[in-house]
Formats: sequence, C-alpha cells, structure tokens
Amino acid sequence: MDDPTRADVLKRLAYIEGHLAGVRRMIEQDTYCVDVLKQTFAVRRAIEKLEGKLLAGHLHHCVVEGIERGDGRVLDELVELYELANR
Amino acid sequence: MDDPTRADVLKRLAYIEGHLAGVRRMIEQDTYCVDVLKQTFAVRRAIEKLEGKLLAGHLHHCVVEGIERGDGRVLDELVELYELANR
Amino acid sequence: MDDPTRADVLKRLAYIEGHLAGVRRMIEQDTYCVDVLKQTFAVRRAIEKLEGKLLAGHLHHCVVEGIERGDGRVLDELVELYELANR
Amino acid sequence: MDDPTRADVLKRLAYIEGHLAGVRRMIEQDTYCVDVLKQTFAVRRAIEKLEGKLLAGHLHHCVVEGIERGDGRVLDELVELYELANR
Repeated sequence: MDDPTRADVLKRLAYIEGHLAGVRRMIEQDTYCVDVLKQTFAVRRAIEKLEGKLLAGHLHHCVVEGIERGDGRVLDELVELYELANR
Repeated sequence: MDDPTRADVLKRLAYIEGHLAGVRRMIEQDTYCVDVLKQTFAVRRAIEKLEGKLLAGHLHHCVVEGIERGDGRVLDELVELYELANR
Repeated sequence: MDDPTRADVLKRLAYIEGHLAGVRRMIEQDTYCVDVLKQTFAVRRAIEKLEGKLLAGHLHHCVVEGIERGDGRVLDELVELYELANR
Repeated sequence: MDDPTRADVLKRLAYIEGHLAGVRRMIEQDTYCVDVLKQTFAVRRAIEKLEGKLLAGHLHHCVVEGIERGDGRVLDELVELYELANR
C-alpha cells in the first residue's frame, strides 16, 4: 500500500472506531433500537468505503504487478473477494 | 432493550472493536490487502449479526407494544429499516 | 396479500423479467461485461424494492394478526428473514 | 467473453428466469409472503453468482489486456463496480 492510501485508510478507520464508540454509548444509554440500527448501517457503509480504497490500492499495485509478471492468482483472488464481500 | 439483550449486544460490540483494532494493526504493518479485506468483510458480518440481535429485541418489545396500542408507525419503521439496511 | 399490493408486486416482477431479458440480449450480443454487470446490479436492486413491498404487506397483515393472537413465530420469522436477506 | 463463459452465463440466466417464473406463480397463488421472500433472496444470490462468472471472464480478458497496454481505466472501472455492486 502506498503512503497516501495507508494514511487515508487509517483516517477512515479512526472515524469508524469513533462511530462505533458512539453506537456503544447509544446502547448503554438505552437509545431507541431503530436509531441504533441506523447508525450500525452507517458504520457498515463506512467500512465498505474503506474497502473501496483498499481495493483501489490493491488493484493499482499488486494486481498490475501480478499481471505484468504473468501471475494469474491475483485475478482469482479478486473473484474470490467479490464472492466473499457480501456473504 | 432487556438486560440479557443489552449484555449480548455489548459483548458483540467489544468483539467487533477488538477485531477492528486487529485490522488497524494489519494496515500499520502493511499486511497484504487481500487479507485485510477478508477481515473487514468479517467485521461487517459481525455487525450484521449484532443487528439481528438488536432487531429481535426491538420486534419482541417495541413492535409488539406498538401493535397492541394500534400504532402502525412501528411497521413503517421496519420497512424503512429493511430498505436502509444495505444501501 | 391484499389486491393492490399483489398488483404492484406483479407489475414490478414484469419489469424485472423485461430487464433480465435485456441482460440476456446484452450477453448474446457480446456487450462489454462492465455494462452487463451494471444492469444485473440494477436488477438486484429492483428485486430488493419488490421485497420491500412484499415485506410491508406481510407486516401490515400477517404480523399484526399474529401478534394480536399472541403468536410470536411471526417475529422469529422476521429475524430469520433479516439474517437470510443478504447471505 | 469467451464461448464457455457465455454458455455458462446464459445457462445461469435461464435458471434465474425459471426461478422468477416460479416466484410469479407463488404470488399469483397467494403463497405465504415469507416463503416468497426466501425465493427472491435465492434469485438475488443466483444473480450474484452469475456476476462472479461475468467478473472472472472480464478480469481474465479485458483487464489483463488493458493492463498490458497500460490502460488504467480498467482498474478504475473495477473499483466503481465494487462500489456499485451493493448500492
């Protein structure tokens, strides 16, 4: 992972950790479940966006390098990731 | 939320927070992106399971009470949650 | 299911069937895969919207009636549906 | 798309069309909504599997060729697809 990608991903992760801490407080303070669920949905969406950044970095580095040296495993891994992503 | 549900949900949340801390370490140590992604997928699945517990508690309490007092809003909220869940 | 819901759901289903027929033509005519995938994503979203209508009808009829006769199975089924929805 | 991939994808599509026709019959015969929903979930999963096949074909052909001629757009498209896949 290049440095700007890592910095971006870590910043997103810090945001997600803070968001989860907020969810914890909501549960401890007995917030209405529907409102808690809307926040956990938002946390999952933020994780998906982080995954998009990880994937972009992966494609532009490891996948390009893999293809350039004729290593098809990087492609099989991408299909596997797609199938795993929402299971 | 009843006490056993809250205890279960908070335990799951602690597990998720620990899992995310592990993801952070993986990124800081420059772990292969594909392996990081598999872990973020697992974090999202763990959040979805937590949501299932929140939803079960919500249905058995707020929704039952809402219907018993003839308040249809609890049903509209459920449809809205379903539509929001994966957007 | 009441008649307006069934009519709405069948109309949506006809639209989805037409959309899938379009996907078939795209594949037969060797359309660029990325463009085909964008259409299958749209088909899945249309099915999710149809599911929202089915769920709304189910909640306002079967679930309300189940709760009114004290039958908790309708609630367990909803949790099961939530967990199944994206697996 | 190569011929074996296209044949596989069209076979899966025929299966999905038959499955949707079954969903239509269920709705017309007023089947219990929960059972209909379980079938629409299965249809969406079958579409996702078809997408996995389309994606695998795309990666092994267009993406490899794109990278070999230094065209980074194929990578940006993959990130875009990932972000679109479940929205």
